[in-house]
Amino acid sequence: MTLVQSLLSGDRLTLARLLTQIENDTSQGRAALMELFAHTGDAHLIGVTGAPGTGKSSLVNRIAYQYRHPTDEIEPKKVAIVAVDPTSPFSGGAVMGDRIRMRDLTGDPGVFIRSMASRGSLGGLAVATAGVVQAFDATGYEIILIETVGAGQAEVDIARLAHTTLVVEAPGLGDDIQAIKAGILEIADVLVINKCDRPGADQTERALRNMLQLAHPGPRVFQHHGAALEVDGAQPQNQETQIWLPTIQRTIATEGEGIPELVETIAAHRAHLKASGDLQRRERARLAVELESLLQTNMMARWRDSLANGFYDTVLAQLVAREISPHAAVEILLQGEKSK
Amino acid sequence: MTLVQSLLSGDRLTLARLLTQIENDTSQGRAALMELFAHTGDAHLIGVTGAPGTGKSSLVNRIAYQYRHPTDEIEPKKVAIVAVDPTSPFSGGAVMGDRIRMRDLTGDPGVFIRSMASRGSLGGLAVATAGVVQAFDATGYEIILIETVGAGQAEVDIARLAHTTLVVEAPGLGDDIQAIKAGILEIADVLVINKCDRPGADQTERALRNMLQLAHPGPRVFQHHGAALEVDGAQPQNQETQIWLPTIQRTIATEGEGIPELVETIAAHRAHLKASGDLQRRERARLAVELESLLQTNMMARWRDSLANGFYDTVLAQLVAREISPHAAVEILLQGEKSK
Repeated sequence: MTLVQSLLSGDRLTLARLLTQIENDTSQGRAALMELFAHTGDAHLIGVTGAPGTGKSSLVNRIAYQYRHPTDEIEPKKVAIVAVDPTSPFSGGAVMGDRIRMRDLTGDPGVFIRSMASRGSLGGLAVATAGVVQAFDATGYEIILIETVGAGQAEVDIARLAHTTLVVEAPGLGDDIQAIKAGILEIADVLVINKCDRPGADQTERALRNMLQLAHPGPRVFQHHGAALEVDGAQPQNQETQIWLPTIQRTIATEGEGIPELVETIAAHRAHLKASGDLQRRERARLAVELESLLQTNMMARWRDSLANGFYDTVLAQLVAREISPHAAVEILLQGEKSK
Repeated sequence: MTLVQSLLSGDRLTLARLLTQIENDTSQGRAALMELFAHTGDAHLIGVTGAPGTGKSSLVNRIAYQYRHPTDEIEPKKVAIVAVDPTSPFSGGAVMGDRIRMRDLTGDPGVFIRSMASRGSLGGLAVATAGVVQAFDATGYEIILIETVGAGQAEVDIARLAHTTLVVEAPGLGDDIQAIKAGILEIADVLVINKCDRPGADQTERALRNMLQLAHPGPRVFQHHGAALEVDGAQPQNQETQIWLPTIQRTIATEGEGIPELVETIAAHRAHLKASGDLQRRERARLAVELESLLQTNMMARWRDSLANGFYDTVLAQLVAREISPHAAVEILLQGEKSK
């Protein structure tokens, strides 16, 4: 049995080893991904992001549990969790995360959890995360939860890997939070207010509704597609129409409250993506972003290999001595490449 | 008078216009930077980072104020503040920041404040920030405070632009904070516990001391340089020795408490950097990081220009159709470049 065959048959140990290969960007990892890629495209990728202190990990844990123990007669889905931690570029904070979140899901063969810490460059992390997600997708994980710690550009970039993006908020998180919302709001398909048993949940919801109103002013949006909607009887949230307005969902992850409803909302979003054609558009955008990071990483690596020994250091020394400017240094370094 | 002459003579309006050119990466902006670069290297660059809710903006404001109104007979220093907000990739949250922080410093010709939001790519932001810092450095701003919102990889990268990095904490910020500290701690020269009037300040300080102890175990560090230190009488924190142990500084920025001491600590760190030779090492590392981002951005732009019309879209379409894998797409795209 080849590596890819044993992966496709669902062997966990082989998968775990492959994930390490992908993280370390080995040639075996790359080769396997090249073969596996044709088997991807079935999973639903869910990005979960938000500021520290919002309880994202518990939430992700509960969502996974819900997919494994669904209500009604729905089949349980295979779930992978990819926890990306760009805040730990140096030490391995990710390992600790693994242990904490394992508790509820341990021993369930339908769940696979992988924590990833940044290794040097952010580009490298994005590339590795994309690869890990592909490996899960190809090996039959139907739901892939991609969790990011923090709320910076890194999170936005990683959210672009997902089909559905949850932005998690919590009541009473201090004054800077408002500023974060403004940027991050625009990538949210679902806004989750977690820790809803805390004081201030209603204010948080009101504030979010106001911001949504500003970001997606109902009348203006609906004028665009007005005609068709008026015939059907305009519904502010309809998965068959072409507009998805970010939904607000209240949860208390530690108690499991609001989780079944959240999972239903995610399903509704997927249905909307399919019906509206947005799924293909997102897939395209998703893969374009992935291609971009991969191109950038590869281009730098190739260029570095092509440089004459010591050339880079000579130019850097001139830069440090202020003999040349950074832009001039770039000119010299890229010329150097061409003349070879 | 040429642009660069009027910049070097301290004209604020010309500087403001140049900063916009740099942010937009125009050819005029690049040309000016190439000329200005020879005049850089005198400013002390101070990075200020930390999680949301720690009161970074007030702190930066107060530090600037302190440099403008120093104790004793020290001359006031010219101060620039560069507020980088990677969390607002879409909307211009940065403008609001300007207005809030202006209050105490308005009308002071020795202070220049510039807010920067991310424009698309993180690489672009890092390049633009470096350019803006150079412009301030060349035009006589002696202290440049670079503030970043959030606590992700972006912040770490931007911290690498600085000579002295302050990591700001605050008591009682929730459970995820601990995880952030682990990564961010390693870039801190000074740890600031702001909002020290809040309950839990002592616990926060104890926790930070423990983490520092783990990260920089005293005995092991001092064994390395043991001989010389024992002769001088070993001092755990001595700006003349080659080791700088991160200092913890308590502040209440809104009251101005602890700010003179913080500014003294920053001065001590600069003295240490000079005495130990670390200043040159940091300058080199700083400029190497800057060169790297600039190279990457330029390389991608050049490559994109070199591509035949429609070639990229064809390859992307094959990728979306799962006919080729991302790695194969990269091969094809980079081959395409070579054969031209």
